[in-house]
Amino acid sequence: MLPANSNPPVKVLTDYLWFNTRRRRELINITEMVSELVERSGIQEGFVLVSAMHITAGVYINDHEPGLWEDIEEWLEKLAPSGIAYKHHQTGEDNGDAHLKNLLIGHEVTVPITKGVLDLGPWQQIFYAEFDGCRKKRVIIKAMGI
Amino acid sequence: MLPANSNPPVKVLTDYLWFNTRRRRELINITEMVSELVERSGIQEGFVLVSAMHITAGVYINDHEPGLWEDIEEWLEKLAPSGIAYKHHQTGEDNGDAHLKNLLIGHEVTVPITKGVLDLGPWQQIFYAEFDGCRKKRVIIKAMGI
Amino acid sequence: MLPANSNPPVKVLTDYLWFNTRRRRELINITEMVSELVERSGIQEGFVLVSAMHITAGVYINDHEPGLWEDIEEWLEKLAPSGIAYKHHQTGEDNGDAHLKNLLIGHEVTVPITKGVLDLGPWQQIFYAEFDGCRKKRVIIKAMGI
Repeated sequence: MLPANSNPPVKVLTDYLWFNTRRRRELINITEMVSELVERSGIQEGFVLVSAMHITAGVYINDHEPGLWEDIEEWLEKLAPSGIAYKHHQTGEDNGDAHLKNLLIGHEVTVPITKGVLDLGPWQQIFYAEFDGCRKKRVIIKAMGI
Repeated sequence: MLPANSNPPVKVLTDYLWFNTRRRRELINITEMVSELVERSGIQEGFVLVSAMHITAGVYINDHEPGLWEDIEEWLEKLAPSGIAYKHHQTGEDNGDAHLKNLLIGHEVTVPITKGVLDLGPWQQIFYAEFDGCRKKRVIIKAMGI
Repeated sequence: MLPANSNPPVKVLTDYLWFNTRRRRELINITEMVSELVERSGIQEGFVLVSAMHITAGVYINDHEPGLWEDIEEWLEKLAPSGIAYKHHQTGEDNGDAHLKNLLIGHEVTVPITKGVLDLGPWQQIFYAEFDGCRKKRVIIKAMGI
């Protein structure tokens, strides 16, 4: 006999990672933190959203290779340079470039969860990219699935 | 005694926002519209996808600050310029730059829903960015959760 | 009388598309493949994530127009050029530009499923963009909904 309810219940996990970097720009590999939260959620099949809650920081997936990190930083600085008289600076801010870097690299990734773990490719790692740090900032981790 | 089904049912809301801008390029803050739809859905925990259904418009999250909007527009024009003899224009179109701006800034965001509301950071606002307007275009709002 | 469980069960489909392109850079329209998997899943309302599992390939949505494909390729090469002495190349790799192209165009899209089909706009097509091919690479297709 089937139980009264044979459907697996939908599970949701919500958590927040806090960062307060010492340098203005910093790159942090958060794959392990996300992975642990997914394991704790008990979700076997679903999605996890990893999303910066600030508009001057990014979240992206790429390689864990220090040379490439420098390439990415130089590239971001070339395409979204600091030291420019952005109109945004007339408000007293000085982080116009950080907003553009956020838009260029993106602030969120959605990672599939399969058989209870992050279903990432062999080289895929999740990074938090701080572009205007030295203050408390958050990333939301929200997983949903069965 | 437990009810026959103690799992909360999955709720889905689908709606479409229509835009017909007067200018070719325009920026519209749609946070409130998305927020109202999420409230109407009754979803307490889940995700809402906000996605342009056209390939010459973007959806992104950033700051509600007019100076920054100008910075973003100038930046998009610099990296994905108009006035270039794109091969796409051999079809009779003249909006090659709008396609590239769409790819640069992205056409979709996924926003977490927590305790019945959009779980956005303090400065995060959702924008529809029109790059080839003066005609009817749509954004899909699709929310799913419990 | 209602059945013991009147909530529709959550369905999940996970599949992987394999590519092994003959040329280093290649563009493949995968809309039909994704569409068939969504149909097979039986999901009526939900989301499908289409995500490259490699850090030197992209997934994006844009127009099925060969002239535009050339424009996009030239644009990617302009903003994330090959033939540069990237620091990443000190590891023996020669694909630094492919990493940057991946970051520029993005590696994932989330497509809404409505009434059992991909809810795309009239011109929206899903593409796999290979930036460092001639070897086996994967895209995950993960759909969830009711």
